[in-house]
Amino acid sequence: MSETASHFDTLAIIGVGLIGSSLAAAAKANALASRIVLYDLDPSVRSRALELGLGDVAETVEAAVSGADLIILCTPPATMGAIGAQIGAHIKAGAIVTDVGSVKEAIVQQLHPVLPEACFLIPGHPIAGGEKSGPDAGFAALFKGRWAILTPLADPRPAYQAAVVRLTDFWEATGAKVDFMDPARHDQVLAMTSHLPHLIAFCVVATAQDVEAVTDSEVVKYSAGGFRDFTRIAASDPTMWRDVFLLNKDAVLDLLGRFSEDLTALRRAIRWGDGDTLFATFERARAMRREVIEAGQDTAIPNFGRDLTTSTASNDDGKYD
Amino acid sequence: MSETASHFDTLAIIGVGLIGSSLAAAAKANALASRIVLYDLDPSVRSRALELGLGDVAETVEAAVSGADLIILCTPPATMGAIGAQIGAHIKAGAIVTDVGSVKEAIVQQLHPVLPEACFLIPGHPIAGGEKSGPDAGFAALFKGRWAILTPLADPRPAYQAAVVRLTDFWEATGAKVDFMDPARHDQVLAMTSHLPHLIAFCVVATAQDVEAVTDSEVVKYSAGGFRDFTRIAASDPTMWRDVFLLNKDAVLDLLGRFSEDLTALRRAIRWGDGDTLFATFERARAMRREVIEAGQDTAIPNFGRDLTTSTASNDDGKYD
Repeated sequence: MSETASHFDTLAIIGVGLIGSSLAAAAKANALASRIVLYDLDPSVRSRALELGLGDVAETVEAAVSGADLIILCTPPATMGAIGAQIGAHIKAGAIVTDVGSVKEAIVQQLHPVLPEACFLIPGHPIAGGEKSGPDAGFAALFKGRWAILTPLADPRPAYQAAVVRLTDFWEATGAKVDFMDPARHDQVLAMTSHLPHLIAFCVVATAQDVEAVTDSEVVKYSAGGFRDFTRIAASDPTMWRDVFLLNKDAVLDLLGRFSEDLTALRRAIRWGDGDTLFATFERARAMRREVIEAGQDTAIPNFGRDLTTSTASNDDGKYD
Repeated sequence: MSETASHFDTLAIIGVGLIGSSLAAAAKANALASRIVLYDLDPSVRSRALELGLGDVAETVEAAVSGADLIILCTPPATMGAIGAQIGAHIKAGAIVTDVGSVKEAIVQQLHPVLPEACFLIPGHPIAGGEKSGPDAGFAALFKGRWAILTPLADPRPAYQAAVVRLTDFWEATGAKVDFMDPARHDQVLAMTSHLPHLIAFCVVATAQDVEAVTDSEVVKYSAGGFRDFTRIAASDPTMWRDVFLLNKDAVLDLLGRFSEDLTALRRAIRWGDGDTLFATFERARAMRREVIEAGQDTAIPNFGRDLTTSTASNDDGKYD
């Protein structure tokens, strides 16, 4: 049943960035749709999608979704409401509409009211991605073994429940593991595991650029001491991240308050020479690393395995201290 | 000349952690010493060093340094003064004493007064390491292509200058690139590229552990969204890091002030919906990533090449968003 259920006649992918292009590649590789239609607002991205053979390319978003059985919105979080309003009248009855946005509650609020009743909105978020953006960055295996979170609406229609099963099968067929969450809970959890770390990384890099005492070239030259990891996290798509912080404001501000408090405590410990507090904090952090590795959420290979990749720069084999 | 100059009759390594064991392995692999003598305060580490065949193992630190031509202190930064005082009388005339500590000014202040005049103190710091600690974590190639910073004293003796040349040759023979800096400058630059990022990472992990709204197991489960990278940075040796923050207090507190200011500005931008400020900051951070990669200080492979390592956990192939 799984194979049939996960197959769609026509899959429409709106927004051909890293996630959109990876979804097209995964759908093609796993034969999840008879036809894949892509659309991107940027004409050069549309041409590139065609060149890459990701699927058929539509010239308008309305044409892309017309007749599609599964529509996946892969555009920045803040665009979803407007796109929904634009495509609403062109969505066929019974179609499944989902998205891959990193925030869920705001997207539901924007998208749900503008979509027709006869389609099934099932918001989603695959916890996958990378620091590279655009259609060339995508690859079919991006979702393999990763969590795809679905946040279904409280829609009692049996057809809606069946749609959730089909979408679950689709994600599983890409290699993802599917999890269900309430949208608000999703936003709270991801604020901690993803949004706060990204904001902090963006901020550390910005601080480094502005500090007068150390030049940018010194920062770059000695970045292997830890800073380079922050630059990688901070290399993710700026538009997407702007939207995430604006749309998940409350949860992020709440955690930022906690983080600032905790950082102030560490500052105070440094100022007053309280080595015990510092040691206890660092020791505790180390324990969490073990949990992450035991849960299979990261490799235990030192340095992320950087040292093992052959195309790595020659001075890229060790780090941290 | 380089080969002769980089060779020492007896090399003593005090402290057999990641760096000490890697130095022993590198010295052995490159035939940089006729004899390698190791000492660690921890008897179990001494036995392990012997089992690993890293060199001869001395039962006291005094015995380890007696007769050594090159003494490398690889113990936590705050221990150096006491060790220097303990070994001072046992160091042979003309010996070179160096260290690998992540802070330099405080170590010079501690170490210089307690060492005999007839030896040559040349403080150092290889920007290499990893999240694993202990003698089993070491490997000979750790320093290959990495910066080894030396902060020589203002010692006009020609024999001192010759010693600096010898130590430079030694580091280069391990594969490192040698750079010279003033101790205070070193501490300022590393505060930005290494100490601040580590403190922030420790703090993010601590905050995640303490937030009541999200359980530790949720944090671990969805850590691929960015958090897992912070756990890796925060997995480094707690003792070493405690010492670093206590000994490089002023530079770290100064940068923490700047960082907190910048973070407050981002918080305010989020609160007031100022997307332009967020976007401009994120866009700027992205540019720095390009500089880091162009400078050969990190691999351009997405996800640090995590996805390419065969022994990686199956759900470890993509990330960020």
